[in-house]
Amino acid sequence: MGSITRMPSEPQPVSILPVSECWELLAGAPIGRLVTNFEGESNIFPVNFAVQNRTVLFRTAEGTKLVASAVSREVLFEADGYSDREGWSVIVRGPARSLHTNEEIAEAEEAALLPWTNPDDKSHYVRIRPVNVTGRRFFFRDAIAR
Amino acid sequence: MGSITRMPSEPQPVSILPVSECWELLAGAPIGRLVTNFEGESNIFPVNFAVQNRTVLFRTAEGTKLVASAVSREVLFEADGYSDREGWSVIVRGPARSLHTNEEIAEAEEAALLPWTNPDDKSHYVRIRPVNVTGRRFFFRDAIAR
Repeated sequence: MGSITRMPSEPQPVSILPVSECWELLAGAPIGRLVTNFEGESNIFPVNFAVQNRTVLFRTAEGTKLVASAVSREVLFEADGYSDREGWSVIVRGPARSLHTNEEIAEAEEAALLPWTNPDDKSHYVRIRPVNVTGRRFFFRDAIAR
Repeated sequence: MGSITRMPSEPQPVSILPVSECWELLAGAPIGRLVTNFEGESNIFPVNFAVQNRTVLFRTAEGTKLVASAVSREVLFEADGYSDREGWSVIVRGPARSLHTNEEIAEAEEAALLPWTNPDDKSHYVRIRPVNVTGRRFFFRDAIAR
């Protein structure tokens, strides 16, 4: 299983982002995707979200599949963005927790997070406290079709 | 566990998309996200992709974590898009397979799928044959920040 170190003759097509840049990119992304793994089944849920003190905060309705599969479990959260020449993706991994105490909810309200649809249906805050944050930037060789 | 059928007094904030519309939306999306579940660990990989005969086709490098965790397994694939007032998300579930025969690869080449980065590193075609396709459209109550 030998490996050969090659000196790149042109810019590398993928670069690893520093964690501070990952958080800046996340903070500017309106939409992310929550990935849960519950009872052997993966699910993915697009959510709007806010970044607060290097955590990811979102709202959802009580009693949903999302809440059942996410809360008190390790989840993934991904956001990305792209132009026609480059793209980025940031992936957060960590436990998700429902917020219950008045203090927790008051803190979350400060993020001024908008729900996607009807605010009356989105009464449940969930916060992901990352144990791992990774980000990459991709440089496209050919402009991608939009 | 009774349920009450409520007549909506305004447009419902989420609508379920017909499968034909799901495929139209997928075909117009340049980027999607592959979710794998391998040995109890979920991973998510942004990929560019093509739709071909109601399958999802993408390329990747040999020997990657993506190939190890995706091939010959059930995967999820998600694409989405949004304006400031509405969004959509389509989720495909099905087995992923590497393409090996000349015939399979010739068929895949017809999709004219561009690799994201260096084409020399993206020699491996993977095709997802969905067993399930679901799509939703979300109507935002408040314009989301971009």
